[in-house]
Amino acid sequence: MGNFLAIDIGGTRFRVAHFDPEGRLLQVKHGETLHSGGRDWMLTQLREYAAELTGKNRAAIQSCGISFGGPVDFKRQRVTSVHTPGWKNFALTEWARGIFGVPCLVDNDANCGALGEYRFGAGQGVESMIYLTLSTGIGSGIICHGHLHRGRDSMAGEIGHLPLTDSEEVCTCGLKSGCTEALASGRAMGRKVQEFAKRYPSESARLLALAGGEAQNLSARELAKAAQEGDTAAISLFMESMRWLARALLIAIRLLDPDKIVLGGGVAQAGDFLVQSLKKALQEWWSPMFPYTTEIILAKLADYSPLYGAAALAMEAGR
Amino acid sequence: MGNFLAIDIGGTRFRVAHFDPEGRLLQVKHGETLHSGGRDWMLTQLREYAAELTGKNRAAIQSCGISFGGPVDFKRQRVTSVHTPGWKNFALTEWARGIFGVPCLVDNDANCGALGEYRFGAGQGVESMIYLTLSTGIGSGIICHGHLHRGRDSMAGEIGHLPLTDSEEVCTCGLKSGCTEALASGRAMGRKVQEFAKRYPSESARLLALAGGEAQNLSARELAKAAQEGDTAAISLFMESMRWLARALLIAIRLLDPDKIVLGGGVAQAGDFLVQSLKKALQEWWSPMFPYTTEIILAKLADYSPLYGAAALAMEAGR
Repeated sequence: MGNFLAIDIGGTRFRVAHFDPEGRLLQVKHGETLHSGGRDWMLTQLREYAAELTGKNRAAIQSCGISFGGPVDFKRQRVTSVHTPGWKNFALTEWARGIFGVPCLVDNDANCGALGEYRFGAGQGVESMIYLTLSTGIGSGIICHGHLHRGRDSMAGEIGHLPLTDSEEVCTCGLKSGCTEALASGRAMGRKVQEFAKRYPSESARLLALAGGEAQNLSARELAKAAQEGDTAAISLFMESMRWLARALLIAIRLLDPDKIVLGGGVAQAGDFLVQSLKKALQEWWSPMFPYTTEIILAKLADYSPLYGAAALAMEAGR
Repeated sequence: MGNFLAIDIGGTRFRVAHFDPEGRLLQVKHGETLHSGGRDWMLTQLREYAAELTGKNRAAIQSCGISFGGPVDFKRQRVTSVHTPGWKNFALTEWARGIFGVPCLVDNDANCGALGEYRFGAGQGVESMIYLTLSTGIGSGIICHGHLHRGRDSMAGEIGHLPLTDSEEVCTCGLKSGCTEALASGRAMGRKVQEFAKRYPSESARLLALAGGEAQNLSARELAKAAQEGDTAAISLFMESMRWLARALLIAIRLLDPDKIVLGGGVAQAGDFLVQSLKKALQEWWSPMFPYTTEIILAKLADYSPLYGAAALAMEAGR
């Protein structure tokens, strides 16, 4: 039995790794995504990184799994991303099979994150869980009765695009229907904190200090940090987003009542402060008629959840 | 192999039935629920009806399944309803085991409706589906990878209590958080149409005619009928509720992307008009980024879905 090749293609970084037959990470190589390089550049990197790893780890690979940071049609095994140049309708699985000569499966990063945490991380042994990736955007992957629930059109888990309110905030999906992502994503928090700091510089002293004095350098990271330090303006702005996110979580709890909600992605680097803030925001809707006990916790594999999920996919492909 | 005993306990009616080992309905007895009779009255009815059926159908029963029209803790096999006198924390399964001398399982009516449609009705062969019971209240049952998804606290499927808006409408659950049930249930539609007819009698001529001239006799049934006939006021009121219900469906589609959404319960007697109205309301949120193909259809077993689900539970109990 050979090793598994796992690949994580993200908007800011990519990773290529070898896992042993028991699912242990043997070695991983990281790189930064060159946006202008497009698809061909990325494919060249992946091939070279994989060749280098294979050279070092003598055991042959038996199969490959790929996490892609954008929409994937799982049934057709095609990337359907329209935002990243050259990827639309690309048969990534076939490419990998051709290059590496082994079976391959690809899925989006939220689903892979869920698979990774379920098989190797915070979700081991649950009957159901939701993995949330809180990053520039917001996505999720749903595990139900031991299966990743992808849905009829590979579109399950789009928690970033629930219509939460009648707000006119335009979302990246083109709708003005109060999407979670338009209200509570890293991008949304960054935009809000920048607007605030430009408008009220005197109330934003601590925020601006964290961003080297430049409002346009502010992001969700500085917002969470200042809020955690107790900065009044930051707490107010951060909790506004937490309330929207809590509403999305409440919807997921009411519909699925999962064992666990596992938080991953860049915004989850705020750690326990994020978890506590979300729990506090959720209390607003507490009702004795719905005494749910869903645990809200941080991803155990941190930003490796999708890579581990890619390894789980490789195992599935190799079966 | 004996037959299965299936019981459906509802707020307005109850049913006791025999199913053969292949899941075919052999015979069913109906009764009207006497609210003032409480639990003891109901249990006496069930015992007598079951004895009568067993007398006619010579084959012994091998197990029993019960659909209960209120919350049930499936893991503990207890009714948790607080709205119906005498049922709170009642161990209905143990009672049935004692009386009928066979294994038994109980679940709530929305979950049973989902099981019934999945095993014997409109949902046969799907990978995932949501059964919606649109009645005085709103509930749902979720099928995922061949399993009814009950959730950690037996609370999955509470689509009637999604926070849809910042409205101050108080729901039966005690929250003022814009629950689906407070905005689009049969009860909500009835209340709205009565208020409208009292306030604008001249615009409500057709509605009032359908209700024998009395505004307080108006319900969702007359509202749907007048809307279907083309009555302008009724269309406007009916579509208002359909838009809220469509928002709840959209949320379910975004999260679960199921093969089918199956509509049951009293309000679903509006038939194809209901389905078309919901589809129309859903178009408001159409986005090319989320081209879902979930089918929205009527329950095939009509108001027998929960009874068939009770038969499916009996089969599970007998295993």
